[in-house]
Amino acid sequence: MTRTTAAFAAMTSTLLATGCLQDAPPPDHTAVFTGSAGAWVDLSHAFGPSTIYWPTDTAGFQLTELAYGQTEGGYFYASYSFASAEHGGTHLDAPIHFAEGRMTADEIPLSSLITTASVVDVSAAAGADPDYQLAVEDLTAWEAEHGELADGTALLVRTGWSSRWGDRTAYLGTDLTGPEAVPELHFPGIGPEAAQWLVDNRNVAAVGLDTPSIDYGQSTDFRAHVILYSANIVGFENLTNLDRLPPTGAGIVALPMKIEGGSGGPLRVVGWVGG
Amino acid sequence: MTRTTAAFAAMTSTLLATGCLQDAPPPDHTAVFTGSAGAWVDLSHAFGPSTIYWPTDTAGFQLTELAYGQTEGGYFYASYSFASAEHGGTHLDAPIHFAEGRMTADEIPLSSLITTASVVDVSAAAGADPDYQLAVEDLTAWEAEHGELADGTALLVRTGWSSRWGDRTAYLGTDLTGPEAVPELHFPGIGPEAAQWLVDNRNVAAVGLDTPSIDYGQSTDFRAHVILYSANIVGFENLTNLDRLPPTGAGIVALPMKIEGGSGGPLRVVGWVGG
Repeated sequence: MTRTTAAFAAMTSTLLATGCLQDAPPPDHTAVFTGSAGAWVDLSHAFGPSTIYWPTDTAGFQLTELAYGQTEGGYFYASYSFASAEHGGTHLDAPIHFAEGRMTADEIPLSSLITTASVVDVSAAAGADPDYQLAVEDLTAWEAEHGELADGTALLVRTGWSSRWGDRTAYLGTDLTGPEAVPELHFPGIGPEAAQWLVDNRNVAAVGLDTPSIDYGQSTDFRAHVILYSANIVGFENLTNLDRLPPTGAGIVALPMKIEGGSGGPLRVVGWVGG
Repeated sequence: MTRTTAAFAAMTSTLLATGCLQDAPPPDHTAVFTGSAGAWVDLSHAFGPSTIYWPTDTAGFQLTELAYGQTEGGYFYASYSFASAEHGGTHLDAPIHFAEGRMTADEIPLSSLITTASVVDVSAAAGADPDYQLAVEDLTAWEAEHGELADGTALLVRTGWSSRWGDRTAYLGTDLTGPEAVPELHFPGIGPEAAQWLVDNRNVAAVGLDTPSIDYGQSTDFRAHVILYSANIVGFENLTNLDRLPPTGAGIVALPMKIEGGSGGPLRVVGWVGG
């Protein structure tokens, strides 16, 4: 064996041992589920006595004890029933909520609920102005840094509002309840122009944000709702922990209660952050 | 340049181009979320008028229309409220349901809800005997073929019962309602000996099955519930589409409504199948 042949043989041996002369094995994506390839983050508030609902909904979340304690059968047993409006707490807006003939809660494909997350942070602007609306410029500035919003992604708008969740007045902008509260609502949202730009120029599957509503508190015509939901884009409201997701590269699994014909419903939603 | 040197240079160039002279990049697990590396399967039944509840629960799922149609504001608007027992349809059993002091629905860590799926198929035995109970032998036979149940996995028991979901009498084993229905319940479940074996010998995070209850229909002492939930193992009931998951290698994301202090609640649950 010449020195050259021996060198080739040694290199070939190394390459075979490292797998570089074979097709690489497919990556083991089950690492996502064992937690060994990243972390899961809960983006959901809990439902309870302090869960925030629209101010015209004064019933809120209602939990009724059916059983709690030892039974005659010798075992412990606890059970409750509950009642709620679809659109309180961390919840889904199905497109039919504001767009006739569009998808109901049970009709939304899993591909619109399980996708990548694209997080736009407008918390500085919203912190300075509680009536702030996400603008086209926020989206184009984000794209200049992170690339075009991917087809099918969930656009998550971080306003910083979730830090106010424990303070209903700070979160909604008013301590009133009932119809007289509505003109006094102040919280940020997605501007109608940005909503129209998304529908005309991009192909997002969902939008979500950490405020009570896709439209800002002062909206009276709910244009962002109408524009986005008419395009069968779904909405996630009252999210939390958006500060724990990177601008790109995260995943989202948003699983609403599967209500037949529902216009929305309670949503449990988690983000996956690799690394 | 000699021929040998040229050959080395060409090979080096190829290896650099293919990444084989560098550390392999980490796998891109976001393929799980784009759907490019596998498929998501909905393991949940919907909530509606035909959703099956325990026969003593005659109210079932209640949906109330709050609004449906054009508004004075010029936009379409649909909205509902709903009410339900925690333990109907596809739902979570939090450990406290049958074990005092154990986890409530909102306390369950995401690691018990998002994990690998291990699917044991007892549909042949259950098809022959509606009172069939998963036995220790079913678990040891499964392990002989697929390896030991992984720490933290969700053990999903496929009985085949989900194909009966549209026929309440076939699903529950009786067409009665109220207390007199309970002694007439017939459907398969997890045997107490198998439950105890799991607690003593393995470290599963969750159990789930495609019937109304972890314990079989004829149970009067709910031993499997008590044994498993005392160990803070969580339960998923009334699952569907378990036939679409392989015995091993699948992932599960089971996201219950996050009810503060809840003993369970509506569950939207999906499986991920690679390939």
